[in-house]
Parts: sequence; C-alpha cells; structure tokens
Amino acid sequence: MNIEKNQIEQHNDSLISKHQQKLNNLKSEWSHIDIEAVIKKLVDFQIAIPSWALGTGGTRFGRFATGGGEPTNLEQKIEDVGLLHALNNSSGAISLHIPWDIPQNPDQIKSLAASYGLKFDAVNSNTFQDQPGSPVSYKFGSLQHVDKAVRKQAIEHNIEVIKQGVALGSESLTVWLADGSCFPGQLNFRQAFENTLASLQEIYSALPANWKMFVEYKAYEPNFYSTTVGDWGQSLLYANKLGDKAYTLVDLGHHLPNANIEQIVSLLLMEGKLGGFHFNDSKYGDDDLTTGSIKPYQLFLIFNELVEGMDAKGMDHATGLGWMIDASHNVKDPLEDLLQSIEAIMIAYAQALLVDRKALVAAQENNDVVLCQEILQYTFRSDLRAIVAEARLRAGAALAPLNLYRDLACRKTLIGQRGQNTVATGL
Amino acid sequence: MNIEKNQIEQHNDSLISKHQQKLNNLKSEWSHIDIEAVIKKLVDFQIAIPSWALGTGGTRFGRFATGGGEPTNLEQKIEDVGLLHALNNSSGAISLHIPWDIPQNPDQIKSLAASYGLKFDAVNSNTFQDQPGSPVSYKFGSLQHVDKAVRKQAIEHNIEVIKQGVALGSESLTVWLADGSCFPGQLNFRQAFENTLASLQEIYSALPANWKMFVEYKAYEPNFYSTTVGDWGQSLLYANKLGDKAYTLVDLGHHLPNANIEQIVSLLLMEGKLGGFHFNDSKYGDDDLTTGSIKPYQLFLIFNELVEGMDAKGMDHATGLGWMIDASHNVKDPLEDLLQSIEAIMIAYAQALLVDRKALVAAQENNDVVLCQEILQYTFRSDLRAIVAEARLRAGAALAPLNLYRDLACRKTLIGQRGQNTVATGL
Amino acid sequence: MNIEKNQIEQHNDSLISKHQQKLNNLKSEWSHIDIEAVIKKLVDFQIAIPSWALGTGGTRFGRFATGGGEPTNLEQKIEDVGLLHALNNSSGAISLHIPWDIPQNPDQIKSLAASYGLKFDAVNSNTFQDQPGSPVSYKFGSLQHVDKAVRKQAIEHNIEVIKQGVALGSESLTVWLADGSCFPGQLNFRQAFENTLASLQEIYSALPANWKMFVEYKAYEPNFYSTTVGDWGQSLLYANKLGDKAYTLVDLGHHLPNANIEQIVSLLLMEGKLGGFHFNDSKYGDDDLTTGSIKPYQLFLIFNELVEGMDAKGMDHATGLGWMIDASHNVKDPLEDLLQSIEAIMIAYAQALLVDRKALVAAQENNDVVLCQEILQYTFRSDLRAIVAEARLRAGAALAPLNLYRDLACRKTLIGQRGQNTVATGL
Amino acid sequence: MNIEKNQIEQHNDSLISKHQQKLNNLKSEWSHIDIEAVIKKLVDFQIAIPSWALGTGGTRFGRFATGGGEPTNLEQKIEDVGLLHALNNSSGAISLHIPWDIPQNPDQIKSLAASYGLKFDAVNSNTFQDQPGSPVSYKFGSLQHVDKAVRKQAIEHNIEVIKQGVALGSESLTVWLADGSCFPGQLNFRQAFENTLASLQEIYSALPANWKMFVEYKAYEPNFYSTTVGDWGQSLLYANKLGDKAYTLVDLGHHLPNANIEQIVSLLLMEGKLGGFHFNDSKYGDDDLTTGSIKPYQLFLIFNELVEGMDAKGMDHATGLGWMIDASHNVKDPLEDLLQSIEAIMIAYAQALLVDRKALVAAQENNDVVLCQEILQYTFRSDLRAIVAEARLRAGAALAPLNLYRDLACRKTLIGQRGQNTVATGL
Repeated sequence: MNIEKNQIEQHNDSLISKHQQKLNNLKSEWSHIDIEAVIKKLVDFQIAIPSWALGTGGTRFGRFATGGGEPTNLEQKIEDVGLLHALNNSSGAISLHIPWDIPQNPDQIKSLAASYGLKFDAVNSNTFQDQPGSPVSYKFGSLQHVDKAVRKQAIEHNIEVIKQGVALGSESLTVWLADGSCFPGQLNFRQAFENTLASLQEIYSALPANWKMFVEYKAYEPNFYSTTVGDWGQSLLYANKLGDKAYTLVDLGHHLPNANIEQIVSLLLMEGKLGGFHFNDSKYGDDDLTTGSIKPYQLFLIFNELVEGMDAKGMDHATGLGWMIDASHNVKDPLEDLLQSIEAIMIAYAQALLVDRKALVAAQENNDVVLCQEILQYTFRSDLRAIVAEARLRAGAALAPLNLYRDLACRKTLIGQRGQNTVATGL
Repeated sequence: MNIEKNQIEQHNDSLISKHQQKLNNLKSEWSHIDIEAVIKKLVDFQIAIPSWALGTGGTRFGRFATGGGEPTNLEQKIEDVGLLHALNNSSGAISLHIPWDIPQNPDQIKSLAASYGLKFDAVNSNTFQDQPGSPVSYKFGSLQHVDKAVRKQAIEHNIEVIKQGVALGSESLTVWLADGSCFPGQLNFRQAFENTLASLQEIYSALPANWKMFVEYKAYEPNFYSTTVGDWGQSLLYANKLGDKAYTLVDLGHHLPNANIEQIVSLLLMEGKLGGFHFNDSKYGDDDLTTGSIKPYQLFLIFNELVEGMDAKGMDHATGLGWMIDASHNVKDPLEDLLQSIEAIMIAYAQALLVDRKALVAAQENNDVVLCQEILQYTFRSDLRAIVAEARLRAGAALAPLNLYRDLACRKTLIGQRGQNTVATGL
Repeated sequence: MNIEKNQIEQHNDSLISKHQQKLNNLKSEWSHIDIEAVIKKLVDFQIAIPSWALGTGGTRFGRFATGGGEPTNLEQKIEDVGLLHALNNSSGAISLHIPWDIPQNPDQIKSLAASYGLKFDAVNSNTFQDQPGSPVSYKFGSLQHVDKAVRKQAIEHNIEVIKQGVALGSESLTVWLADGSCFPGQLNFRQAFENTLASLQEIYSALPANWKMFVEYKAYEPNFYSTTVGDWGQSLLYANKLGDKAYTLVDLGHHLPNANIEQIVSLLLMEGKLGGFHFNDSKYGDDDLTTGSIKPYQLFLIFNELVEGMDAKGMDHATGLGWMIDASHNVKDPLEDLLQSIEAIMIAYAQALLVDRKALVAAQENNDVVLCQEILQYTFRSDLRAIVAEARLRAGAALAPLNLYRDLACRKTLIGQRGQNTVATGL
Repeated sequence: MNIEKNQIEQHNDSLISKHQQKLNNLKSEWSHIDIEAVIKKLVDFQIAIPSWALGTGGTRFGRFATGGGEPTNLEQKIEDVGLLHALNNSSGAISLHIPWDIPQNPDQIKSLAASYGLKFDAVNSNTFQDQPGSPVSYKFGSLQHVDKAVRKQAIEHNIEVIKQGVALGSESLTVWLADGSCFPGQLNFRQAFENTLASLQEIYSALPANWKMFVEYKAYEPNFYSTTVGDWGQSLLYANKLGDKAYTLVDLGHHLPNANIEQIVSLLLMEGKLGGFHFNDSKYGDDDLTTGSIKPYQLFLIFNELVEGMDAKGMDHATGLGWMIDASHNVKDPLEDLLQSIEAIMIAYAQALLVDRKALVAAQENNDVVLCQEILQYTFRSDLRAIVAEARLRAGAALAPLNLYRDLACRKTLIGQRGQNTVATGL
C-alpha cells in the first residue's frame, strides 16, 4: 500500500497547532541552541531497515501466528520499508539478506526502491544456515571451518553477495559469523581465528574500491561455548589485519552482561574503525527487542559518544557510519515495532545533539562529576519529541507516524492485499 | 536396534582386567567406605530421557542436518531409550511430551517400554506453541492469559496430558510455562500470577491421588522481559499455594548469571518442596549443553546437596525426586550426547556419595574453611569412574557405553533401519 | 549550617517566572489529570537518609580524601539531613546505624531532629563487623553462626538496636546480614537457614507491637559463594515464618545480573510482604551509585509497580513502605549525591503517578503490546521536573536544590565549621 | 620460621609407600606418556606469591581479625614465601608491591630471598590509593587524569618502582590501573585512553632493555561505570601501541560474567602479547578466592590453552610467562589458602600436560565434538595428584604440604614469633 501525500497532510493538520505550541516551548527553552541545525541533522538521518525484520519473528520454541499481511517477496518488502519511510522519513534504506532476497531483476528492484526514496544499505551474507542443495554444511562453521571446501563455499557465497550488492548500489558488506563452538575442546581457537582471517582476506580482496566490509561480533548464540568473532577486541583484530576498508560493526545485543557499550563505541571511533551499528534492545542476551524499550538511557549514552566521536573526527553523521535496525518482532506488528524503534533512535540522537558539550568538557576538566551528570541528564530529561516531529514535518512525513499507521489501518490493508497467512522470510 | 546380551559381554570381557585393577585400586584407597553400598545406589539410580531429546536440536537461527536415523515415532523413541538403557542401565525411564508423543495404543506402548525395562516418568504439557487447529493462541501466554478462553484451553490440555500419563503409568506432570512478557507494561505481573495460580489450581484438582505436579521455573526465554514462573521463589509460592502434591522443579539452565543453584536445591529440600531435576549444562543462558561439559564441579556441588538433603529427610535417592535430562543436541549425535550426560551425572552422584560427611560436619562446626574445601575436593579430584563402571557391570550393562555404541556402529544401524533424513519431533 | 527561609525565597524568586511557564505548559498538556493531587503526593513523599551516607565512601581498595566538612557525630549528621530537607522537603527522616550512631541523650537528639522537621526511620543493626572489645567474632557469620554464643551476641545486639530505636521514635528494624560463605562446603545451607531463622525469631519476639522488621536480602558481597538471605525468595521464606510484622526489604543493588526487580516488587506487594526500599543504582553489582544515574527507566518501572501495587492494596504511598537511600559517595560530595538521588526518585515517582493507568489496563486486556509501551514511554519521555519543583515550592523548599546548595557554598561553610579532614563513620 | 630438611623427610617417609603405590598405578595407566618429562616440567614450574597476599584480607565492609602471626615487614614476608616454597617447591618467587614493600637495603633483601631460593618476580605500582604526603590525589585517576601534574606523579611513581625492581633483580613491571569513572559523563573515554597511553609511553621508555611491561585489564571495581583498561581488547591496544616489551596481563577475576577466558588466552598467545597471569577464582566479580575453589574445570581449560599455545610458539613453560597468584584471604589462613591455590594450579597444569594432543587435533579435524570432549575430560577426571606430589618429592619438598604445615603447627610458631595482632599491609 502507498500512503498518499494528502493523507499525511490531513494527519499533520489535525495535530499541527498542538505541535507548534510544544515546539515553540522547546525553542524558547533552548534559545541558546541552533535548533534549526539540529532539525536539519534529524531530517538527514536515515536508519536502514533489514529485509528480514518485516515479518513476525520467533524463538527456538517456535513462532506464533503472524498478524497477517507479511511481505512474501522482495518487492513487498520494499513496499513495506517505503511505507515506513513515507510515515517517518527516517527509514530511507533497506538492507538485504542473501539468499533470502536475491532480486530477479536488479534494475527493476532499484527503480522500485527509488520510487519510494529508498537506497540499498549493506548487504548481508548468510553462512549460519545450510541452503537446500548446498554441497557442504556450515554445521561446524563456515569461514573458520577445518575443511577448506566449506571455507571455499562460504567465501564464494560472500563474493556472490557483494555482486548482488553492486548491482543494487550497495556499498558495504556485513559479515556476521555464527562460527564458534559449543563445547570445550571442539575448536583450536587459534586455528579458527587464522582460518577465518584467511577467508575474510579472500572476500576482502573481492570488495570494490568504494566498498566497506563490516565485521560483526557477537558474544554467544547460536554457539554456546565460543564464538570466533566474539567481541569488539577480536573484531578489531580482524579489521586491522584486513585493511582500510574493514570495520567493526556493533550490535547492541551482542555483548556479555553489563558491558559498557558506549565506551566501546568511543574507542572504535578513536581508532577510525567503527563501521556501523545494529540497533535493538535487550535485557538478557541478544533479545532483539524494540530499540529503546528496555534501556533508553544507555541508548542516549551511546549516541552521546557517537556524536562526540564523529564530530571529533569530522565525520558526517548521516553517512559516516552504517545505521541499521536489527530486531525480531515476536509479539508486535513488525511495522509498528520498527516505527517505535526509529522514534527511540531519533529521540536519543536529538538528545545527544543537544548536550551542552562545552559545559561538559569544562566539568570533565574540573572533575565535577556531579555537574557532568547534571548536564547529561538535563538533556535526557527534557522532552525533545517535538523537535523530532518537526524534522518529520519538514520532510513531508507524519507528525505521529504510529498513530497515522493505525488510523489508516495499514495492517488491515496489507492483509487485504497479501492475505492473512503470509510469512516473511527471516528468523 | 537392540543390543544383544552377548555383545555387551564380549565388550566387557575385553575391558574387564583393566577395570578390575582400577576398581581394586579404588577399593583399597577407600577401604573405610562401604563401596558395595555405593555401587548399589548407583545401580538403582535412573535418569529419565525426554522424548524430545532424541533428535538433532537447533536454535532460532536454524537446525543443521541430522546425522540420520532419528526416531520418527514414539515406538522408535522408546527403542532409542532402550538402547541407551541397555548400554548403561541408568536410563530406565522416558519422559513424554504431549502432543508430540500421543500414543495410539497405550497398552501396547507400555508393553514395548517394559520390554526394554523402561518406565514412564513425568509427562510434559506444551502451551508454548500453538497446535494446528487450536481455537485460540498462546502468543500472549497460556495459564496467565488475560482471556479466559485461552486459559481454559491450556488447562484442558494439561488435564488431557495427565490422562495420557495415567494410561502409561506416569505419576507426575511437569508444567513448564513460557508465559511472561517481552516488554515493560505488557503484563500486570500480579494479575498474571493470579491467573496462573488459578489455572494451576484447576489442573492440580485433576491430579490423581498418587501424582505430583512439578512447577518448573525459568528466568527468561522465550519471553525476554518477564517470566511468570521466573525463579525458585515464584515456583515455591505457587507450590505452597497449590498443596502437598505440588513441587518445584529445577532445570540447571534456567537461572540468572552466577546463581548459586546448590543453595536453592538445599533450601527446597529443607522445605520439602523439591520435586525434580532437569540436567544440562550452560555457559550463558539456557544453552542446553551436555551435562557436566562446562561446570562439572558445580554438578558435583549440587549432588552434594542432594545427597545431604535427601539423607537428612530420609528420602530414597532413586525414587525421592524426578531425575531427567533436558538438553539440546545441536552438534553431537543425540544418543552419544545423552551417554555423556548420564556418565557425568553418575560420576557426580558417586562423588557426592563418597564425601566424608562426618568429617565435613566437624570441619563446618569448627569453621575450618580450608578443611571443608579439602574434604570436598579430595573426593572431586579422585577418579571414581571405575565405581560407576562397576555399577553398570553388575547390572549387565557396558563398562564403556560410548565406546560400545561406537564399536557397534549403532548410528549406522539406525540409519539403515530408519533412513538418513528422518527428523525427530522436538526443538 | 542552617539555610534561612529568606535564602530559599530569594532563590525561588529568581526562578519563579520560568518555573511558572513550564508548569503551565505541563498543566495544559496534562489537563485531563488532577495535577494538584499529584503535587500533594509529591509533597508528602519522604525518603530517609541513612546516617552512614553523609561522608565520602570507599572500596576495599581504599577511600580517597574527603571534600571536607563531613559530620563527625550524630548531631552533625542530623544537621546535614536537615540541610537536605530544607533544600528539597523530601528528606524528612534519618535512618540510624547502631553502633555508629548511639545517641548519648535520646530526648535531646529527638528534639534536635524535630527542629529540622526530621523523623527517625528504621534503625539498622550491624553484625557484619566486629566491634572493639566484642567477646566473639562475626568472621563466620552472626545469626547463622554454628556457635550459639555468637548468635546470642548478635541477637542481643539487635534487641539493643530496637531499644535505641524505641527511644528515638523509630518503628522498624532493618536486618541486613552479611552472613554466608566464601567457599563450597563451608556452610551447611540448611543449618545456616535454620540458625538464622531461630535467631530472627528471638529478635522478632522483642519487637514492640507497632514495629516492623525488614529482612534485607543480597545476592553476594561480602561473602562470595553464598549468602544466607540471598534473594527475595529466601527473605520471603523468613518473613512468612516470622509473622505479620516481618517484611522483605528490597535494595536495588542486591540482585544477580539482569534481575527483573519490578516484578519482584509487584509480587511482594501482592503477598503483602514488601516492607521497604533501599534506593541506589548500579551497573555491575552493589555499586551503590547515585539513584537514577545508570538506569533511570528501570527506576520508573519500579515506581510504576509500586504505585500500581500500593493503590491496589489501598496503601498510603508516603507511609505504607519504608523509603530510604542506601548509596556510597566515592567521587561526589555526599550531600550533592543525595540531592541528585532524591531528585531522580521524585521524578520517577511523578512519572509513575501520571501513567494513564486506565488506558494501560485496557491495552493489557487487548494484548496491545505496542500501545502498552507507548503509554509507559509517553510519560517517561515527558518532562515532569516542573511538577516536582512545584511540590518543593509549595512546601517551602527550593525550586533547584542543587543549584542553591552550590550558590550558598554550603560545603565551604561546613568545612569552615567542621574542618577539612573530618571523616564520617560509614563504609 | 624455617622448615628443616629432616622435618620434610620425616613427613615424606610417613607417606612414601602409599604415594609410590598411587604413582605406580598412574604410571601404568599412562605408560604411553613420558611421565618423567611431565614431572620435570612440574618441578620447574614456579608461581610467584604477591607480597600483599600474606595477611588476612577484607572487603569494603571491613576486615575481620587475623589469625595472628602475619608478617609486618618485607623480611617476614620473604620468610613466609620461603616457608611455602620449602613446603611445595612451587613458590620460588615473590612479587613486590610499591610502596608497601620498599626495601631499605636491596642487597640484603636479595640475599635473604636467595637464602630461601626465591627470586623477585614482577614489581607492582600503586596509583589506586593516595599515599600520605602525596602532592596530588588519584581520586579521579592517575595515568588518565585530566591534570598533567597527577599524571606526572603517577608516571614518576612507576619509574621509581622500576628502579626498586632493578635493584632486586626483577625483570617486569605490572601496571594495574584503577583509572576509570563512576558515572556517565564523568570521562571523555577517548581522552582518558590517550592520556593513559601517553603516560604509559613515558613509563615504557624508562624500562630497562631486558624488562617487560604488563598492562593488566579489569572490567570494573573500584570504578563502577567505566575502566580505562577495561578488557583484553583495550589492553592489547595499549600493548601494541607501546611496543615489543609491552604485554597484556590476564587476571582471572577481571572479566564480565560468562567471559570465555581460555579463548582470550589463546588469542593473546597467538598475537605474541600474553605477558602473564594472575590466578584466583570467583563466582560473581573479582572475588579473589582460592584458585580452583569454584571453577576447577575452567582452570584446566585455561591451562590447556596455555600449554597448547606456548608449545606452538616454542615458549618455555616456566619462564615464558609471568605466573602469579592474586587473591584475598578473608576467611582462611593466608598461607593455607596459598598452598591450596598452588596445588590447584599444579594439578591443572599437570592435566593440561597429559592431554592427548595428537588425538585432540585429529578429533578437531573430524569435527568429532563428542570425542574432543571425551579427550579433555578423560584427563580432567583422572587423578593426577600423585604426579604433582612426586614433583615435590623430587625437589625436596613435602608430599602433602598443607598437612605438614598443619602438623608442624606453623601458624602457632609464627604467632609465637610475631605476635597475635600483627597486620600485614595489603587490601
């Protein structure tokens, strides 16, 4: 389904006066800040939607019935992301997963995406599952595998994914490896690292000149004893050995309990090796919950480091890193879940932009810990939603995307178009 | 496949002289202990095999190809457990999962099981998945559900499971609930508790007089914010409110990081409310790895409390509690994995039996912490495998079950009989 | 030092117009809510300050130099809490620790406290340290100890603490036990529980009729293997066995990683057994950081359960539970740290009061998980600071307590009065 | 006190026949292994004792009374380590902490140590506490500090520590930094890293040619939000930027929950950047318990990687890395605690030496996960204590060091010599 311009205008009209009032209140409170510059950055900021997060997710205990209307092919997935982007103007990219999303006709797919204002973000390879008819199995790993034939198959798959990405205009490859072990003794850790590195080097050498490779790390799951790219330290080792085009990718849910993710972000930026971000939230492990639903303050603290670190390096916020959501929607309508995630991200980004950085530096120089906290929490406790809404308004999107999505009964329309029992590919 | 008596005898003959030597060494070292009484307890000790752990398991990221020969019906599952029991004489029970294992003809199934020397342990209900054709869904919980119709369906399912169990001679029902929530605000915790309690009461009232109900707890997964029977404290609340036939069931993988499980075991025994045990091992969460593969000392410490606490209550070790394995075999042959788990359990049990309890009590009375540790570790560091093997030998089972399983190429035989691509029901 | 009324008025005058504007904005946004009732509840809400949290804290690695002016006797501690209460009108109680704060003349101390508008909250016993001249040592526990003489000494100390509390008008005893063990085998868990219970029963029987006993639990530290009141389940067992006057006390930092504290709070309220609260924040363990400095959303979720659960029971918010801060100020001025903690608590409480509970119940009944989250986060993302400030204004306290504390150079005054190198008792 | 040669001989004579029998049993079971070579490695293996671990330790909640006879000066500390070394011949080095152990006369101290057969292992600096009279404070960090004067003081202290070490024949400096922050916003992570690096570079440039610098990491405590050398990834970054003489030091207790330490060890060895090891054990955080008292299997797995990785690099086991205990003895006699730790380490080392590495490699090549586990657990479940005892016997030490320590009433003698209420410096 498409959302018409006039539907959005009508929605915005109904909310505009209240919105203006709140915005004016905010502007008067933050008169010392160039709010227009903040709004411009918010308008420019885009978070890619992964093609596998448009359907109902599940766990190893099963997947419950979808709410219906899930996309069953790439075209419909693009349509869904287009719908989100029309609503919030912050989802202007889609990140494809190969082999779930191999386009039959790349040019046609590109045109379709462009018609929604969408670009193709990082492409993602899959060596954590066996595909029907594959000669060899990834049961004991892919790029790390003791058997050269398995490594070769996995390398070739990644190179194939790059090719698919080139055809669509992507400029980065995300390599998430499930490789690791379930039991002590199963792996020689060093050999696993060396095999993985050699495999990554072959893939790296197939990267086009303008491409980046993101090496994602994860502490555990689906392997439950060791993971071969298990933490940021290991990912950075690989990225440094690979070369300038290789970067570390941070997924919020891929850490041991209590990890200080914002510090990791800061250090990776310092090293020039932070490549991108997968947003979600979690309480226990890689729970893949809606971004900001569990630890919104942590999300703000991470953005605080991102803004500080990117500014220190002179990086463009919108294009300097790869921004993506990576979540699983087990009990929510996937599109509503994504709208909530993006709203949380935009709020955290706005909060980070409004931190009084000069005062913070001064307080840090004085070891005035109380004041440092006051400065951060002053912004966090402020209600910046009107600024985020204004950014949407300026870009022609909806003041209240989730409300409009519900008011327009989008899911019902999608069910009408696609049926009740459709199931999207994904986890 | 069946293992013939003479195959076991031949295997044992080949190992007997070395075994006798080791056993004699042990006997001379532990001459102050009634080793014969220990061996008798080991012979009597039986660990139930869950019907869903006979096939290759997986994660939400997928399930890799089976090694082949998996059981595809209840008869074959019983055959598999029979095979294990023939090898080690410690797996004399099977725990069924309904609806995966509904017997067409209970009497015939009972006879089949009896022919392998197997009993039917606890029956397990399933309200964490929707069954095809079910009128209502468990997506938002079962016994906790805000909708009475869902609770009713779940209650009736549990009562049906009891009936199936009665027909087979089971005497306990294990209720594991995935009920909980994924996001703050989703549930009213109190109402969820009260609904769950009321539902459990209805099931409880359908229990035959000689039955027990095991209320299993789990910290998280598949719900990632709250679980309605989330820890031993909650389970005990339910069990106390339900009555004398209700007990808490401990699964080793169902705790928050760093939990002291052995203390929980001790306190539940003190309260007369420990009902049973699900064995497995884990490093991160409910990893469902082979028992004893990650933390064998913890397993010993747990058995140390079990033995101490059961003896203090005058409970029979073999029948006082429900003993079961609950693991997932993602990268190992399921039957080999189970043989390893049982071996680890038997060793831990033997170690606990040999702890010098009189000396330990004296050291505790003196707060001689160094000596307390020496006493426990003296036993743990001893090599008691020959005693465990002797228990098998006495019972007509194999001295080295895993070796015999491999020597007889059991998996190959099973593949020959059942085919390569069979898939067992389960997770 | 005392803060004069006119100092506060002058401060408030300087901020009043901006404050009024913000408050009016809030009122117009929340016109459907009885804001006056909310403000009244905020005015009434008092959080006790522990007498041991008025000085610089430390770790086992040492304690760094104080910022000076720390209170060195009970009178000065009361003066400090009086200062806080004058600033924020939310710290109208002090919680004493015996033997650190034994009053020479209870009546005089009571009068002094009353002159600041302060009451005496729970009294706290100490059996985690040996006092000079004590006949027996708590090295291996107190109420759990294998030696009756040690238990007797600990029991008598607690009874003495009750007496001290009676003289001051306290009405509750908080028992936090460090009892536990550092190594496997050190303790018989059951005997430790039973000894502790018997000891608590003796103390319980010495409670005046109108008193409560709070049994605090803690997962670990200073014992690093087991703790004898280790989690809410154990605490509840004790409280239930003790009787109607015994309750569980929740300290936010006393849990295993990832524990769902808000669910624990809800269930304890359901059972009528939540007695009180120790506020602080933490990232790793019992870090005792400023409340709300790490996980402000969790703090809100806890208050959300408190408000919901107390209302369901018809409990008075201000008097139904014991509210206290329990933190350690290692790198901040203790009084500033406390002002920040109280501000965070008041904001969280205000947020909880403003949750649209009717809408939340409806959304829960519909399993509309997206909407449940929207409702909670709508309030959390709102800026309610003006309402909290208004409550202070109404009560004659400062609109911006921390600012006024700094503007008046309170610490400098205290140093002038007490000296630079004073050290308060505490951890 | 000194233990006389004939005391040891008498002790050994009383145990020798039983010992020989056990050893012979072991030798016959492991006849395919060169047990003599293993024994030689065990004889050569020495674990340094830290000078601060000879007295009773405590927590932030206090330190309980010592058992008496604690060393009060460096000479007595050396005497204590000499006592341990006489008993077990595995503690032939002492690691000093400056400023707690500044020798008045280095040559005399060297001679004294030599008389016990002791060397001086790594020297340790202290910038986590302020020393009386220090011009500036480490309250807000040392090498990371925003104030250059503080950094300078900390740098000079480290250089002074090197000088002390040179005088005694040490060849390495261990830098453990408590530097970090307690609250979000307190630090600019990047600046803290850069300051720390620049400071370390100055210290590094003062290292003698044959020295190593060990950069120790720790996840948290005494800072509870961030630590500036927080994990192995950060430590490795520093070490790589510093140069060839800089290495990472692993302390077993310095990780987030569930970390796979053995994998970290393997990767650091691969990178040629593992410098040394601090042994202890823990259940929750940096609990500093007796090595092997909580997770003996993990200890074995770590040694398994150490042996494999050092052999792969051709490193000498005894001299290739710095081996040290770092524990806190809160409830045990410190010397008994150390004897238990060393015994656990020697057993784990012996187990690792006996792993059938050829079979393991073959099983790994076949992805025979079951067999990999069998191989590791076969050795772990074996009772190798007689081999460890034999290594002691060969070196003139005691077959059962702890028993002899108790039989000789060493603590009583030390109390007689030094008094009951002596307190050793340390934590």
